[in-house]
Amino acid sequence: MLNDSKNRAAPLVIVGSVAFDDLELPTGAFRDVVGGSAVYAAHAASLFTVPRVVGVVGDDFPESAVSELVQRGVDTEGLERRPGTKTFRWAGRYTENLGSRTTLDTQLNVFAEFRPTLPESYRRTPFVMLGNIQPALQLEVLAQAASPRLVAADTMNFWISGERQSLLEVLKRLDLLVINDEELLQLAEDHNVKRAARAVLALGPRRLIVKRGEHGALLFDADSTFYAPAYPLESEIDPTGAGDTFAGALMGYLASQRDLDQNTLRRAVMIAATVASFCIEDVGPRRVCGLTLADVAARLEELQALVRV
Amino acid sequence: MLNDSKNRAAPLVIVGSVAFDDLELPTGAFRDVVGGSAVYAAHAASLFTVPRVVGVVGDDFPESAVSELVQRGVDTEGLERRPGTKTFRWAGRYTENLGSRTTLDTQLNVFAEFRPTLPESYRRTPFVMLGNIQPALQLEVLAQAASPRLVAADTMNFWISGERQSLLEVLKRLDLLVINDEELLQLAEDHNVKRAARAVLALGPRRLIVKRGEHGALLFDADSTFYAPAYPLESEIDPTGAGDTFAGALMGYLASQRDLDQNTLRRAVMIAATVASFCIEDVGPRRVCGLTLADVAARLEELQALVRV
Repeated sequence: MLNDSKNRAAPLVIVGSVAFDDLELPTGAFRDVVGGSAVYAAHAASLFTVPRVVGVVGDDFPESAVSELVQRGVDTEGLERRPGTKTFRWAGRYTENLGSRTTLDTQLNVFAEFRPTLPESYRRTPFVMLGNIQPALQLEVLAQAASPRLVAADTMNFWISGERQSLLEVLKRLDLLVINDEELLQLAEDHNVKRAARAVLALGPRRLIVKRGEHGALLFDADSTFYAPAYPLESEIDPTGAGDTFAGALMGYLASQRDLDQNTLRRAVMIAATVASFCIEDVGPRRVCGLTLADVAARLEELQALVRV
Repeated sequence: MLNDSKNRAAPLVIVGSVAFDDLELPTGAFRDVVGGSAVYAAHAASLFTVPRVVGVVGDDFPESAVSELVQRGVDTEGLERRPGTKTFRWAGRYTENLGSRTTLDTQLNVFAEFRPTLPESYRRTPFVMLGNIQPALQLEVLAQAASPRLVAADTMNFWISGERQSLLEVLKRLDLLVINDEELLQLAEDHNVKRAARAVLALGPRRLIVKRGEHGALLFDADSTFYAPAYPLESEIDPTGAGDTFAGALMGYLASQRDLDQNTLRRAVMIAATVASFCIEDVGPRRVCGLTLADVAARLEELQALVRV
């Protein structure tokens, strides 16, 4: 199921945040952890394809973090460093069981002025992942992309309540929406996941993936439902970025495949769940940065065995 | 996977509560709903084997409810009707999304004096399901059972905190513990499901099944983990008794099988998840009472398709 087909893969544009995270975890406090949705997604996607990152950072962003992406084969031409600014910063505290978190501080800094611009070399990229940014900006990215083969997007509660009209425009343009279950229920204004999924599919996306954290992920299309369990972890350290890792692995794997049929999508969700599980085992993107295809293949086999009757 | 092997099945003793439930559901209020763990479990198990019920009711318990069990092939010799008493009564209110419930009233009535007694004809029953009752009473049942082939038990938070010592005695005697995830974490005093499962297996039961409601069920033994998803429902009416339905279907199916190997256990968990899903689609045990093997087989196929890659 997992062959190294990176050299045959189509590239993938990933638009999202690049950040410093200050994390208060049950295992300790960690400051200035390099993160953001684009970083997690790019590291995960780099297992399968060449991710092309679109994001913005300030003077304070370490060159070493950029090098780490480049070493994983990530194209960072679209990662803008704006002089005289500071990088986006998020601070949060997790509960003892990591089941929920509180935002302690958000400093948008340079991210407040982010107007994603695709370098000329990115414009014909067949796969596009629109990370969780303002829906109007997601539309701007789509205006710059020349007939992509597959467009996926993430979003969040803030845009669902505050920018619903633009978000509905985005949904019409999507092949795939990747959100978590709370966001799904909020978007559909329903408390039943299956009914809500049907309602959201009617808004435009051809397919919908619902992330449920430790409870796995669901893939919906017009005709069928697929469920991938989460890999049961014995040591959970930091769930930050697991959802972005999931999306990055998903899109990276799809970009490496010739056919995007239902079976490929199902495999992609299983692989995404597998890669995301590694993310939680260390602080920040540390574990994902060092991940090999062999690591993923071994755990994927375990995940498949988990549901084998 | 599902053949009618009821005529070759071994009988199953089910010890548990028989009750009237007053249910405040988002869809309305329902009074005097016949329920209790033994009733749900017996109806579910009757799909696969002859359940032998051990329980107690008062004068007020309707003969029609007993007939309904008998019509499903349930042996009710062990269902004691104690004159001059009232049946156990529970009243609860569910939240709009059915995600949690509040107990409004509990009247133990005749259940307070319940001392389960196996009729002579039940004593050599090979399969025993100890429903959620006081651990000391579960031990009394085991003292009356002549070398059963498989003993399973359920328990609850109340006994885990209040009767831990007796409960630990029960655990040593079990082939299979069937509890929900909150109970597992409480029993193991851990917040990680996989670590907690390992700890509980070390206390005695050869196998452990963790029910997670809409998030499916996990089967653990010393060497492996299996996961069965929950069937995604579009119409959820009443989750009361779904856990007991799960346990009843599980044990009923096992009693109908020759080999109790890992594959049989995995199939049993899938079947139990399937049967439990029907329970939620109507008030009380109504849907489970009318269930046929063909209904179960059709939905089981859908549940299997849900995880098929």
